Amino acid sequence: MMKTIGYATHSPTDTLQPFTFERREPRPEDVAIDILYCGICHSDIHSARNEWGGTHYPYVPGHEIVGRVTAVGDKVSKFKPGDLVGVGCLVDSCRHCAACEEGLEQYCDNGFTGTYNGEDKIGGTPHPFTFGGYSDKITVDERFVLRIPETLDPAAAAPLLCAGITTYSPLRHWKIGAGHTVGIIGLGGLGHMGIKFAHALGAHVVMITTSPEKGYDAQKLGADEVLLSTDKEAMQAAQNRFDFLLNTIPVGHDVDPYMALLKRDGTMVIVGAVEALTQVNGIPFIFRRRSMAGSLIGGLPETQEMLDFCGEHHITCDIETIEIKDVNTAYDRTIKGDVKYRFVIDMASLKQEAA
Amino acid sequence: MMKTIGYATHSPTDTLQPFTFERREPRPEDVAIDILYCGICHSDIHSARNEWGGTHYPYVPGHEIVGRVTAVGDKVSKFKPGDLVGVGCLVDSCRHCAACEEGLEQYCDNGFTGTYNGEDKIGGTPHPFTFGGYSDKITVDERFVLRIPETLDPAAAAPLLCAGITTYSPLRHWKIGAGHTVGIIGLGGLGHMGIKFAHALGAHVVMITTSPEKGYDAQKLGADEVLLSTDKEAMQAAQNRFDFLLNTIPVGHDVDPYMALLKRDGTMVIVGAVEALTQVNGIPFIFRRRSMAGSLIGGLPETQEMLDFCGEHHITCDIETIEIKDVNTAYDRTIKGDVKYRFVIDMASLKQEAA
Repeated sequence: MMKTIGYATHSPTDTLQPFTFERREPRPEDVAIDILYCGICHSDIHSARNEWGGTHYPYVPGHEIVGRVTAVGDKVSKFKPGDLVGVGCLVDSCRHCAACEEGLEQYCDNGFTGTYNGEDKIGGTPHPFTFGGYSDKITVDERFVLRIPETLDPAAAAPLLCAGITTYSPLRHWKIGAGHTVGIIGLGGLGHMGIKFAHALGAHVVMITTSPEKGYDAQKLGADEVLLSTDKEAMQAAQNRFDFLLNTIPVGHDVDPYMALLKRDGTMVIVGAVEALTQVNGIPFIFRRRSMAGSLIGGLPETQEMLDFCGEHHITCDIETIEIKDVNTAYDRTIKGDVKYRFVIDMASLKQEAA
Repeated sequence: MMKTIGYATHSPTDTLQPFTFERREPRPEDVAIDILYCGICHSDIHSARNEWGGTHYPYVPGHEIVGRVTAVGDKVSKFKPGDLVGVGCLVDSCRHCAACEEGLEQYCDNGFTGTYNGEDKIGGTPHPFTFGGYSDKITVDERFVLRIPETLDPAAAAPLLCAGITTYSPLRHWKIGAGHTVGIIGLGGLGHMGIKFAHALGAHVVMITTSPEKGYDAQKLGADEVLLSTDKEAMQAAQNRFDFLLNTIPVGHDVDPYMALLKRDGTMVIVGAVEALTQVNGIPFIFRRRSMAGSLIGGLPETQEMLDFCGEHHITCDIETIEIKDVNTAYDRTIKGDVKYRFVIDMASLKQEAA
């Protein structure tokens, strides 16, 4: 076993504090990674505070991991020591169900293993649940390791592993490209990546937000237009205009005004709201054959495709880098929406602290 | 103008009573039809009582019309006197928008003209709004007239024009066929046709209902299995089983338990509930990339395709034929769900009454 340092909480009301634990020694199919950066996803905070239930403590968050390979097992063919790699939301799945066979491990019929707080079916440590990337190293099966293009800033690439793939995957699944008018609803960690990807895919991109200031920021990120959802006349005029809506609102909300923006046969995809939508009327669906769908992160092959796309198009996340000692302050600021658009922990700060 | 007899209401609280009005003389592109049968759709009742707002009185319902051609205009090429024909929910549309050009007149960007209570843009009568099929004759533009296969019972074919196409269209649009497991939710006028079409298209059909008795009836109509939505264990066991759900429930309801029945990438299509759905949670959408969509009747080309399919597969509706004097009682019974599965008015009774 490999002694590992990180930050953990011990209860829903604790702050994150230094914590020492074990990672497994690499098996033949494993890659050992020295973690350089880890993004802070809002899910990390929900789980830290047990807001979705089911959090096991001690809990080490983090599933937007970028690092360098330090060792590989005998059967590893895709990676070698020194490679720049990433680990996202998954570190294991059943590998034999229909979803896994299609490379859609995020929809594994037998349940994927989350990078943190997942039941660790591989074992090799005294810990029954997985520990995430707020730590100095991690051991991951080769299948769940991604190659990060060396041309990308490794810190700014970290949130691609969750915020990036969560927005890229639905845009690709619904075949968005040139000639499409796409609305990105909400500007946060997810929304800002939705703008960049939809723009890079050739779509006409409209930022849909309650905030004129966010609209201004969105244009700097690549949005062609802004639609203020508080402007009833503008919303009325924009009805039946959109081929596709990427809805990143992270809480329950009234979807009717957004559904009305879709053209016939258009689709709105929910990627943020893992709770009840407060108003959903059948009429906007029926009268133009519109659809509402959901989408969860992405599978490993598509995540690699996204990273390669980012390398080619020079896309990374807009981030604020922090030292790990400031993680609790960063949590408070994330909850307030006071970050453009993702905090990323520089793991050198963890190693210095421990030294 | 042609003097026409029918039944109308004069206010939301009146019953239907005999009523005389005018139809236009056939223009060059028109077909004059002697109405033989007209189905009673629940929408007729909602509009009669102004439950959806916007009903203009006097109001003559009826959009499931079967009759014989009595005369055609000079430019009519598809029909001749004596042909057995049908008229459904639409009698006009703009004909030049993208939807009309695709033969999806039900989604006309400029608004289709309903067979009843629609603003009559063609004119030729003193009546500003269209009158429906509870009447002895009708004049309709050739584009909106359908050919009824002579092999079908004309009375039992009448509800194909609304209940039939409303269920056939989504099954075809979502490419349902052999190898698919399809759930039909709710057994009424729509649901009973959903079973017949899904079965004829080769799918494995499961009736999803609260009522064991309806389940038994559904099996006689072609359902392979019954799933009682009140049986929590059975609903749990059926999760992730369905490729497609056709949801015919005519009122607002909690969709979460149904969404959970869909496989990854499965779709539930709402065809009945033109009101607020009371519970819609984002999680079932996100975690298996499921979709919820709506669908409205069908365009003219697809309605003809459906009728031809019915001719080939010997499909008609299960009906109870009534005389027009009993229409108000039939309304009361329809509201109670006391009909298997559609009332059809024999228009000979209207002509006898008037004689």
